[in-house]
Amino acid sequence: MKETDVCIIGAGPAGYTAAIYAARKMLSVIVIDKASSGGQTANAIWMKNYPGCGRIKGKELMQKMRAQAEGFGAKTKEAVEATDIKKTTNGFEVTTEKGKILAKTVVIATGTKHKHLNIPGEKEFYGKGVSYCANCDGLFFRKQRVAVIGAGNSGATAALLFDEIASETILIEFLPEINCDEIYRAALQKTKVKIIRNTAVTEIFGKEAVEGITLKNRASGKEEKIAVEGVFIYVGLLPENSLAKKIGLKISEKGFIVVNEKLETGIPGIFAAGDITGALAQTVVAAGQGAIAATGVYNFIKGIK
Amino acid sequence: MKETDVCIIGAGPAGYTAAIYAARKMLSVIVIDKASSGGQTANAIWMKNYPGCGRIKGKELMQKMRAQAEGFGAKTKEAVEATDIKKTTNGFEVTTEKGKILAKTVVIATGTKHKHLNIPGEKEFYGKGVSYCANCDGLFFRKQRVAVIGAGNSGATAALLFDEIASETILIEFLPEINCDEIYRAALQKTKVKIIRNTAVTEIFGKEAVEGITLKNRASGKEEKIAVEGVFIYVGLLPENSLAKKIGLKISEKGFIVVNEKLETGIPGIFAAGDITGALAQTVVAAGQGAIAATGVYNFIKGIK
Repeated sequence: MKETDVCIIGAGPAGYTAAIYAARKMLSVIVIDKASSGGQTANAIWMKNYPGCGRIKGKELMQKMRAQAEGFGAKTKEAVEATDIKKTTNGFEVTTEKGKILAKTVVIATGTKHKHLNIPGEKEFYGKGVSYCANCDGLFFRKQRVAVIGAGNSGATAALLFDEIASETILIEFLPEINCDEIYRAALQKTKVKIIRNTAVTEIFGKEAVEGITLKNRASGKEEKIAVEGVFIYVGLLPENSLAKKIGLKISEKGFIVVNEKLETGIPGIFAAGDITGALAQTVVAAGQGAIAATGVYNFIKGIK
Repeated sequence: MKETDVCIIGAGPAGYTAAIYAARKMLSVIVIDKASSGGQTANAIWMKNYPGCGRIKGKELMQKMRAQAEGFGAKTKEAVEATDIKKTTNGFEVTTEKGKILAKTVVIATGTKHKHLNIPGEKEFYGKGVSYCANCDGLFFRKQRVAVIGAGNSGATAALLFDEIASETILIEFLPEINCDEIYRAALQKTKVKIIRNTAVTEIFGKEAVEGITLKNRASGKEEKIAVEGVFIYVGLLPENSLAKKIGLKISEKGFIVVNEKLETGIPGIFAAGDITGALAQTVVAAGQGAIAATGVYNFIKGIK
């Protein structure tokens, strides 16, 4: 059984910033993640709004945060899912499939996961044309036709990428108007990306792999099939709250962990940070919360009020 | 008279992150600062805890943030102090000694200023041996004797710097124990820095310039004079709240602007971000708040609830 001052669950910007801050306070730190490290930030193709880093790949930014935390002594364990947390005399016992971790404190920074459309073909063709990450899978679709579903900032960024990679890019938005930042809107206007508004995607079809999608205009009700090889879905994010629910933390209506301004949850010694708290889903906001949570962890361990 | 979507008062990490985010939403942005840009972060000698930047000089980090904001179209005006804000029909009129700025919204990110000891000689010898910024003035004291007053993280960092520059470094803490992070404590143990605890500095003396300080042990009451050429004071930060007070914003007991989680102040259209809100005084926390404030600014201008 491993022992640590703080077990941080989730290796995104909140988790690694908490790790940097805690490790610099000479606390022992284990960061675990059920997937690989980096969180949603690692899926960002290019980031231009993380202050101080100019233009940087999300993956590179997260590698830097990880290296920084590990440079101060934090340990990372990837592909380790925390399935339960139990109170012990001196802290908490974090259960994972790969053994238990005894931690004086816990920071839950589990972030969010991709929202699904829940339409026919979405699950079936996942990895066979359907993806939630242009940064990961985009290059498979060089010179092919790609539909990007959802015109928020992430969808718009993906569409801009595909304008350079794909033979044809279609950006489909459910609402009557696209809702990405103006800077993306302006950028999209200079591309060949075809924007279809007020339209639902009702089906993804194909044989071995994706061959096309069915669109339904929400005003006219008219349906139309279009041929594409790639479908990239960016329709939002859902909080990764199953662990928080299991241990009985207070969860908001939208599924986020309820915290106070010190990022304390209802259980003393367990903190939450980043997207899972319902804060603005931006890397720098999550990172800021990581610093606050680590300060809480330190004060908790040292008995500072 | 200049017109802008948002006038950001204070060119530190909160101000420039707000500028980056607002400018990327295609808002016009003017950042003003009564001093030069960079805020307290620019005074940090080496930063190792800003996530994603490894080891970076505070000044360099702030130059990067400024360049990023200006790259998206934000304008900076240094040495321009905002002395008043008045409500107009379509926003606010920000008064400065160099003219008025008409802004639809305002972000107050004025941060903090150095706390003074208020002891004889402190004011008199400011710039003649007394300083609040080792990063700015440290190199003037090569091979000389330096006293650093206050052993929090900033004071400890300064002492570590002087251990390499000065002939002798004395770190003086008012409390019985130094209160910097463990990592600094461990680093100090490997240096020749002499740490004096539980001791007040009661006077800074000299003729043309600093020649020494008087120490008073708080347990024994015993006084002692020691000879130093440099006195670096790191005894805390005070909120820069005079503008906020003038316009009637709600101020907490400790002097910070009271905000809600969207960083709205009591006046719709005026937001506050960074150290002035009483948040944990860390660059990444201030930056995170800047992103949140800019989102509020955008929603306010667009009428989004």
